[in-house]
This record gives sequence, C-alpha cells and structure tokens, in this order.
Amino acid sequence: MTAPVDLAQYTGYLLRRAQQVHAALWQSEVGQRATSVQFGVLSMLSEHPGIDQVTLCEHLQTDRSTMAELISRLEKRDEVTRTKDETDRRRNILTLTPQGERTLRELRPQAERVNEILTAGLGENDQRELQRLLVALLESPRMQGALADE
Amino acid sequence: MTAPVDLAQYTGYLLRRAQQVHAALWQSEVGQRATSVQFGVLSMLSEHPGIDQVTLCEHLQTDRSTMAELISRLEKRDEVTRTKDETDRRRNILTLTPQGERTLRELRPQAERVNEILTAGLGENDQRELQRLLVALLESPRMQGALADE
Repeated sequence: MTAPVDLAQYTGYLLRRAQQVHAALWQSEVGQRATSVQFGVLSMLSEHPGIDQVTLCEHLQTDRSTMAELISRLEKRDEVTRTKDETDRRRNILTLTPQGERTLRELRPQAERVNEILTAGLGENDQRELQRLLVALLESPRMQGALADE
Repeated sequence: MTAPVDLAQYTGYLLRRAQQVHAALWQSEVGQRATSVQFGVLSMLSEHPGIDQVTLCEHLQTDRSTMAELISRLEKRDEVTRTKDETDRRRNILTLTPQGERTLRELRPQAERVNEILTAGLGENDQRELQRLLVALLESPRMQGALADE
C-alpha cells in the first residue's frame, strides 16, 4: 500500500491546474480575438519598442521556432513589422504597427478582467505576493539552468 | 501611443509562463513514462480509494470527456480499474491496481525532483506561501462560478 499523496504539496500540480483555469477564463472573456501568448508578445513589444526577435525569445522564455510562427501570424494580421537591423543584418527588429497598438488597447481591459476573476479569491496583498513569488520562481537561475540542459 | 504594459501585473501571464516551465521540466525529468495529469489522477485515486468518476472530475476540475479518455488510457495500462457501483449503476467506481500503485511509487520521487527544481529559487516559507496562494486561487467561489457559466 502506497501512502496517500497530498497533491497540494506539488507546486507544479497547482500551477498546471491554475493555468488550466486561466486558459478557460481567457477563452470565455477574450475568445478567438487573440491568445494570451499573442497578448504577451504585443505587450512586450509595446514595453520594448525596437527589440530584436532573439532577445524577445529570451524575455518570454520561448524557443525560436515557436516565436517565428507567432511573429509571422502577427505580421499577417498587420499587427507587427519585422525589419533587418541596418548594422547587423542577422538581427530582426520587431515593431508594433498602429493596428497592433489598437489590438493591444482593446485586449488590455479584457486581460484585466481575466486577471480580476482569476485572483478574486485573494486580497490585494495576496495578489501582489503571488505575483512576487511567481516572478521569483521564473527568475531562479537553477531552474533556468535545468531548462538550458535539455 | 499606448502606455507600456508591465506583464508581471498579469497573474495569468505569470501562471502560463510558470506552467510552461513546469511542463518542460516534467518532460526532461519524467519524460514519456506518464504525463503530470496522469500522475495527478493516480495520486488522487491513492488519496481517495473507491472515488467515483464524477467526483474525481470535480476534484480535478476536469471535464467529463477528458476524464473518460484519461481513465481509459490508465485502464489499458492496467493501472486503474473501473467498476459499476452495486447500489447506483450510474456511478463508476475507480480503483488503483497493484500496477497503478507501482507506477505511482516510481513517479513520486521524479515528481518531487520536478518540484524541487521548480521551486529552487524560493525559500521554504515562500514555497509554502506559493502553495497556499495557489490553493486559495483555485478554491475561489467567484472563479468557479465564472467557469461554470461557460
């Protein structure tokens, strides 16, 4: 007989379930307009105008082929432009188009609503605490090392 | 011009990235042996012997058709048995087989290693705090209401 497992001690299990709930909420509040990943890319481009594609991959911890697909989808929707850096032709500089800015402005209140429902069970201090802990988890050098080993 | 967005204020964004990292870690530490979802089901059956399939869906916030697929896969691997309840024939009672117990015993240290790497950037208090906050988020009645409305 195996001793019972308390799943709540597995942070990964809780993260998976929380993300599952987040995905369902995004679907019901935002729908087909854009995925939460696309929202992340548009936001990052608005925060870092003129960022290159490789740096964007690093910031979002996304592999290069996934990012290439994401960017061409946003280019087709005329939300992002990709231009070669004049001084280093291997660098792809990404810029939000006016259409991209508009999409981001429309998505933002919806993303905020998702966030509001998602964290409705937590007080303000606990919301900030959860954000702090998730950022610390994501920035842990040991975890980044483990992933780079793959 | 849209004001820049700080993505770290979107808990959902952080949750998605954290789950992405968790999925990559699970893949590198556990691989094809079982998914983290299957580990969750086996653990839940070990915690609640004789649970029925509908209650299991509720505990894991999984829809019934996804759960039906999950259970038939575990049945095929001889890790779970499904029997009709004698007093209520609509209830499917789920039980871990000896093989299911063995799988769970093998997976547990691997799941613990995933957890250890995942939370390596947090001290012990912060790990417990993160678990507490994720459980609070998952148990929020308002969020469960929002999902049920779908």
